[in-house]
Amino acid sequence: MHKLALGIDIGGTNTTFGVVNDRGDSVFEHTTSTRSHDTPEQLVDFIYQTLSKYTLLDQLCGIGIGVPNGNFYTGNMEYAPNVHWQGIVPFRSIFAEKFQTTVILTNDANAAAMGELQFGAAVGMQHFVLITIGTGIGSGIVENGRIVYGHNGMAGEYGHLCVVPNGRLCACGRRGCLEAYASCTGMVRSVQELDSQHKKTSVLSTIEHPNSKDIVEAYKHNDTFATEIIDFTVHMLGNALADCLCFSDPQAFILFGGYARADIPLTDMLLYHMNKAALKVYQNKADILISPLHDKNAAVLGAATLVFN
Amino acid sequence: MHKLALGIDIGGTNTTFGVVNDRGDSVFEHTTSTRSHDTPEQLVDFIYQTLSKYTLLDQLCGIGIGVPNGNFYTGNMEYAPNVHWQGIVPFRSIFAEKFQTTVILTNDANAAAMGELQFGAAVGMQHFVLITIGTGIGSGIVENGRIVYGHNGMAGEYGHLCVVPNGRLCACGRRGCLEAYASCTGMVRSVQELDSQHKKTSVLSTIEHPNSKDIVEAYKHNDTFATEIIDFTVHMLGNALADCLCFSDPQAFILFGGYARADIPLTDMLLYHMNKAALKVYQNKADILISPLHDKNAAVLGAATLVFN
Repeated sequence: MHKLALGIDIGGTNTTFGVVNDRGDSVFEHTTSTRSHDTPEQLVDFIYQTLSKYTLLDQLCGIGIGVPNGNFYTGNMEYAPNVHWQGIVPFRSIFAEKFQTTVILTNDANAAAMGELQFGAAVGMQHFVLITIGTGIGSGIVENGRIVYGHNGMAGEYGHLCVVPNGRLCACGRRGCLEAYASCTGMVRSVQELDSQHKKTSVLSTIEHPNSKDIVEAYKHNDTFATEIIDFTVHMLGNALADCLCFSDPQAFILFGGYARADIPLTDMLLYHMNKAALKVYQNKADILISPLHDKNAAVLGAATLVFN
Repeated sequence: MHKLALGIDIGGTNTTFGVVNDRGDSVFEHTTSTRSHDTPEQLVDFIYQTLSKYTLLDQLCGIGIGVPNGNFYTGNMEYAPNVHWQGIVPFRSIFAEKFQTTVILTNDANAAAMGELQFGAAVGMQHFVLITIGTGIGSGIVENGRIVYGHNGMAGEYGHLCVVPNGRLCACGRRGCLEAYASCTGMVRSVQELDSQHKKTSVLSTIEHPNSKDIVEAYKHNDTFATEIIDFTVHMLGNALADCLCFSDPQAFILFGGYARADIPLTDMLLYHMNKAALKVYQNKADILISPLHDKNAAVLGAATLVFN
């Protein structure tokens, strides 16, 4: 009989929750619109009722939650910019009261890092960094097999490294952050903000609001401007990974989401730029890997893993 | 009876070694010119003979060594730019063979961090970063009370964060590193490289080769150009500390050496710039402290501490 845990991935748009066993097999999974729940308590009630219907409640050994700006120490979601509940939301205590079980909460990238460590690209690794690419850039740092939380529980915000002093305005209100350049949103901004003589003749100029998939598609069809955008985006990320080496000297960076899912030679390009920019003692040492958990729900899996660890 | 350990701080210019007890009291200390020893083996012999004279050899429970570019895992000094022995020097095995005792080697900033943890500003802290300011900028990161070594043993090179893309050439051969701006050497470079209308009327223009102490002295006498240099240097370091928060979210940064010893309002200025540049979740959380171990030999103390831990 395998142990079962509830893993929950709360995002600004959707919340996915699943019951997972300690081998990483999904027993049950459901997705609900986060915004359809007016209060955090209503979301928690909804999850409780759903599991109750399937008589799964009694079998859970605990609940793991991944949320944006999740604080492992406090169990709160703190000022998450893309979620409709503002300020501090004490999810850990709300869940614990409703479910009367152990609840562990962390940020979504840390949860994904735990998923990689247990079931993905990082099995057997002691030191690695999980980078999530999407609307923003998130990161989960693992050192000696454990998530780095820091003093206040908020370590690992690689997306907000300043890579261009006084550069692009970031969603966080500051300027020049990595995620303003190398997230999917940042890549899309480059359509407007990158100078190029090939812009006018690019297929991207014929699309009203091109998204990152359009850019990748145009790149695959050898569109020159799209190629410049991809090169620029990857160059910015590669340089930032060289900076990350100075901090944690990891065995590997594992990329999850966004254009990491696209069929482009991303790891080769990133390795080139990272090693070119890296301090000599770090050159050609760290791997760059694409998460093998894109088809599973890595965030739910990782959140559940928090319970098993 | 207290335990005794030999702590050794090997630098490009001098090597200081001392016998320290587990309360941090120095029982014996000696300094020798590193360059006066043609080979690493000759330095090790010299230390052995010196301790032998004072009949201290039999009392040692181990040896801790701090060296530039020291690798904790391999026990080697790897390509240290300012030491006259080039390439890889296997100090751990040379010492172990000669002394027939336990030898632990790490980089000098990590050793200093251990000293702070055991006897200095970081007593009782779980998460902090020690920053050494001198010819370069070094750092030792402590997470959960343990030094962060990373996969290859070389984590924590904050001095080589890229803070100005394509900026000043650094001693490492790359451009725009923090230490090219915020080390003592970087501060001195600003005398030449910083534009100012006050340069000609500054007392610094009357000194043939001003050093960082001259700049601090001129600053204390309200020299406008010297004030601009200090402001610029501290601003660069403060911005970089804001980046460091994104990685390790420490309780405090502890500054050791160089202008951290000078009687200037360094911590207030740094706190201002760091918090202004920091991501909201990190603002006004981390302390900035000056090491209280400047009068003791923190590097020797820290190296010896490696043995006690």
